[in-house]
Amino acid sequence: MFEAAELGNSTDKATYKRESIKVREALLAAQHQLATANFSVVIVIGGVEGAGKPETMGLLLEWMDPRGIQTHALQDSTDEERERPPYWRFWRLLPPHGRIGVFAGSWYTDPIVGRALKNTNGAQFDQQLQDIVSFETMLSRENVLVFKLWLHMPKRDVKVRLEKLAATKKTRWRVSKTDWKFFGKYDAFREVSEHALGKTSTANAPWVIVEATDWRYRALTVGRALVDALQKRLAEAQKPKPQREKPPLPRPDKINIIRKLDMTQKLSDEKYEKKLLKYSGKFNKLTRAMYEKKRSLVIVFEGPDAAGKGGAIRRLTGAMDPRNYQVISIAAPTDEERVRPYLWRFWRSLPRAGRVGIFDRSWYGRVLVERIEGFCAPEAWQRAFTEINSFEDQISQYGVGVVKFWLTITSDEQLRRFKDRETTPYKQYKLTEEDWRNRARWDAYEAAACDMIERTSTEECPWVLVEANDKNWARIKVLKTVCETVERLLDR
Amino acid sequence: MFEAAELGNSTDKATYKRESIKVREALLAAQHQLATANFSVVIVIGGVEGAGKPETMGLLLEWMDPRGIQTHALQDSTDEERERPPYWRFWRLLPPHGRIGVFAGSWYTDPIVGRALKNTNGAQFDQQLQDIVSFETMLSRENVLVFKLWLHMPKRDVKVRLEKLAATKKTRWRVSKTDWKFFGKYDAFREVSEHALGKTSTANAPWVIVEATDWRYRALTVGRALVDALQKRLAEAQKPKPQREKPPLPRPDKINIIRKLDMTQKLSDEKYEKKLLKYSGKFNKLTRAMYEKKRSLVIVFEGPDAAGKGGAIRRLTGAMDPRNYQVISIAAPTDEERVRPYLWRFWRSLPRAGRVGIFDRSWYGRVLVERIEGFCAPEAWQRAFTEINSFEDQISQYGVGVVKFWLTITSDEQLRRFKDRETTPYKQYKLTEEDWRNRARWDAYEAAACDMIERTSTEECPWVLVEANDKNWARIKVLKTVCETVERLLDR
Repeated sequence: MFEAAELGNSTDKATYKRESIKVREALLAAQHQLATANFSVVIVIGGVEGAGKPETMGLLLEWMDPRGIQTHALQDSTDEERERPPYWRFWRLLPPHGRIGVFAGSWYTDPIVGRALKNTNGAQFDQQLQDIVSFETMLSRENVLVFKLWLHMPKRDVKVRLEKLAATKKTRWRVSKTDWKFFGKYDAFREVSEHALGKTSTANAPWVIVEATDWRYRALTVGRALVDALQKRLAEAQKPKPQREKPPLPRPDKINIIRKLDMTQKLSDEKYEKKLLKYSGKFNKLTRAMYEKKRSLVIVFEGPDAAGKGGAIRRLTGAMDPRNYQVISIAAPTDEERVRPYLWRFWRSLPRAGRVGIFDRSWYGRVLVERIEGFCAPEAWQRAFTEINSFEDQISQYGVGVVKFWLTITSDEQLRRFKDRETTPYKQYKLTEEDWRNRARWDAYEAAACDMIERTSTEECPWVLVEANDKNWARIKVLKTVCETVERLLDR
Repeated sequence: MFEAAELGNSTDKATYKRESIKVREALLAAQHQLATANFSVVIVIGGVEGAGKPETMGLLLEWMDPRGIQTHALQDSTDEERERPPYWRFWRLLPPHGRIGVFAGSWYTDPIVGRALKNTNGAQFDQQLQDIVSFETMLSRENVLVFKLWLHMPKRDVKVRLEKLAATKKTRWRVSKTDWKFFGKYDAFREVSEHALGKTSTANAPWVIVEATDWRYRALTVGRALVDALQKRLAEAQKPKPQREKPPLPRPDKINIIRKLDMTQKLSDEKYEKKLLKYSGKFNKLTRAMYEKKRSLVIVFEGPDAAGKGGAIRRLTGAMDPRNYQVISIAAPTDEERVRPYLWRFWRSLPRAGRVGIFDRSWYGRVLVERIEGFCAPEAWQRAFTEINSFEDQISQYGVGVVKFWLTITSDEQLRRFKDRETTPYKQYKLTEEDWRNRARWDAYEAAACDMIERTSTEECPWVLVEANDKNWARIKVLKTVCETVERLLDR
C-alpha cells in the first residue's frame, strides 16, 4: 500500500508557488460555503513520526481561515477523560456544522501504537479497527465529512531527516529519544499501519496516503485532496433532498413481549413499605461501594406518558447520597446539540466515575418518538439500533453498569391517570396536548417499543419490562433490579 | 449573628407532617413556573460540618422535581479545572434559565477553610469575600437568583451528634478523623464564618441562617425560605419590563485617544519582511517556553470592520506550533449561551495551561456592538466595564497573560477597503450589509471604543492601540507587542 508513496515525488519551487495559490483560493472558497452548510468536517492526520503532522496542521490553518478550524493535538488523557469510556474525549471535541476539527492524535493512535509495541494481539487490534469503522460510518451518516490523511515517508528518508536535525545545534532539540525509539520500530509500525489503513479505508471515510518526504509535494497533495473532498461533499449537500414520505405507522403483533406481561401484578401498601425500606437501604449501601470502587451506573427510563417514570426515579434518588447522582431529563435538543451527531448530547451527559446517571427518556427517543412522529429520516432510526448498541457496548466495556427500564401500563390505566391529572389542580401541568396526541398513536408506539426491545436488549445492557399499572409493584421491581445490577457490577 | 440560630427551635412530628405537605406543594408549583421563566436559580448550601448539608441537598431533590435540579458536591478540582482560574469550575456548572443548580462545596469553601486554618491573612480573606460579592452581584444582575443557606449548629450539638454516630457500629463509618479535626477548630470556623456571612450578605444574595439541630425544623425552615425567594423572584419576572428607550448614540470627543494616533505610520515591504521573520522566530521560541512552563496567554482583537484583524491573527498563528493555540471567533451566542450569564461563553473558551487563546472579537462586544445597537439594556453594558475588569483580573491573577488590541483605521481607509472587497471576486463574501450599517455609525463606535479603552485598560491587561491603515505596520506592532507581553509573563 505504501509503495505508491515511495516514488520520490517532489515539487519545484516555481510550480509550488503557482499551484499553491490556486489550491488556497479553492480551499477558502470551499470553507466559505461550508460555513453555512449542514455538515461538519473532521480531519484526521496520521502517519509516520516526523513526516510532518504538525506542519500539515499548520498548513491547513495557514491556507484556510483559522477562525473556522479547531485543532486538537491529543496527548495524554485528562482525569476527566479517564473517568469515561475512551471515545468520550473524541466525542466531546466533535465540531458543529459549518466547522472543521483537525485531529492529530486520534482514535487511531492507541490501537496502532498498542499493536506495534505488541501490547495487543491481532484479534484485539482487529476489534479496535472494527470499532473505528463503526464510529466513522456513524459520523459520516450523521453529517460529518471524515477526511483522513496518512503522511508516509520511507525509512531511509526518516533517518536522513532525523540525522539532519540532530546535526545542527539549532534544531537538535526537535529530536527526542522517543523519536529514535520509534524509528527503531519503523518496520513494525509500517506493517501495523498498513493493516490498519486497509481495514479502515471505507467508502465513507477513505484514507488519502500522501508521500511526505518533499514538503512542497506533500502540501500540494494534501491541499488538493481536501479541496476535492470538500467540493464533492458540498455538491452533495446542495442536491435537493427527496421529499421525505411519511412511512406507514408500525402495527404491533397480536402477541408481543409487552402484551404478554401480567399486568395484574400488585403489591399491598404494607408490603410495599417494607420492601421499599429494605431495598432502599440495600441500594444506599451499594452506591457507597460503587463510589469507593469508582464504578458508575447508567439507568434508562422509557415508557408511555404517565407510566410512572418520575415516581420510580424518586424512589431511587431518595435512597442515594445526593452528591452521587444526576437525573438527566431529555427533552428537545439545544441548537448546539442539533448541529452534531445524534448521540453527542448523551455522551456529554455520561456520569463521572463512581456516580449514577439516571436518564428520564434517553437516546431511545430516536427509535420511539422520532420514528413515529417522522422527526428523522427512516434510514436514521433504522441504523440507530446498531449505533445505540455500539454506544452502550462501549459504556459497558469500560466497566459502567447499564440497565434500561420499559415501564408498561395498559391503555385504560393511562386514560385513568390522564383524567386524574386533568381534574387534580396541582397535577394539571403534567398533562399536555402532546400527551393526548401520543396516546392516539398508542399501537404504533407499542410496536416501536417491541422492535426496540428486541433489537437492543443485550446481556450486558438488558431491557427490563416493568408492569406498572400498580405503582407499588413497579417501584419495587425497579429498585430490586437496580440492586441486582449493581451487585453484578461490583462482582465483575 | 449565630445566636439567633441557637435558640433550640424544633418542630414536632404532627406539625412537620402537616406543614411539609404545604411547603412541598408550593415548591413544586414554583418550580413548574420557573421551568419557563427567564432566570435560573443557584442554591449555595454552606454551614457547620455535620449540620446536614447533604441531607438538605437530598431534601430539595425529594421535595421538588429532581429532573430540574443539578447538584454539585464539589471536592478536589480535576486537572482540567486546575489549568484555569479558580472560578472556572463554578462558571462551567452554572444552570440554564428555568433550572436549579445546588452547590455544596462552593466559592465559599476555600476562602473559609483557608482562613480558619490560618493559610490566609485577614486582608487576603477580605479580598476573597469582596470577589464573592462581585461574582454574586453579577449573577444576580444576569438573571440568576442566588439563594444561600447557612446551616448552623451550636458546638455542644455538633459534639452530641458526632458522639452519637460514633457510638453504634452501624453509623460509626460516618464519622471520620477529619470530622473530629474540624470539630477541634469549631471556634475558629465560627468566627471566620460569621465574618464571611456578614461581608457577603447582600440585598441581591442574602444568607438565610438556619438553626439545624432539629432536622424537622431545619427542613421546614429551608423549604419555606426557598418558597419565599422563588415566589418573590417569579413575581418580579412577570412584571412587564419597562419599554426600553433607545438611548442617544454616544458622540466622540473632538480630541480623543483614537484621533490622536499618527495614522501615517507605515513600514516598507522590505523592512516588513525582515521584521516579520525576526519577530515570528522570537514568538515561536517564546510560545515553546510558555508551553514548557504551562503559562497561557489570551489575546483579544477588536476594531472596525476591515481593520485587518484576520491578517494580524494569521501572522501570529503562522509563527506558532498549531498544537498550542486556538482561535476563538465570536459571533452571535448559541441558545445554550443565551440562557446563562453573559460571560459564560468566554469562560468556557479559556485556553488550557501552556496554550494561547486568540479571540477574534470578544467579551467587549457588550460595550461596543451591543451598546450601540441596543442589543442589551443600558444598565447591562454600563456595569459590564466592572464585570469585564473583574473577569480579566481573575485570569491575570491566575498567571495568564492578557493583551488586547484595538486596530484602528481611518474612515476613508475603511471605505477604500470595502470598495476593494466589493470589486474583488474572492473577497466579496467578506463584505456584508451589516458592515455598511456599522459604518454608518462610525462616530458612535469610535466614542464607545474610547469609553471602553478608558475604562478597561489596566496595567496587567492593557489595551494596545494599533495604527492599522498600513497593514505592514499593524502586523509588526502586534507581533512585537505580543512578544513583549510573553517576555514579561515569563519573567513574572
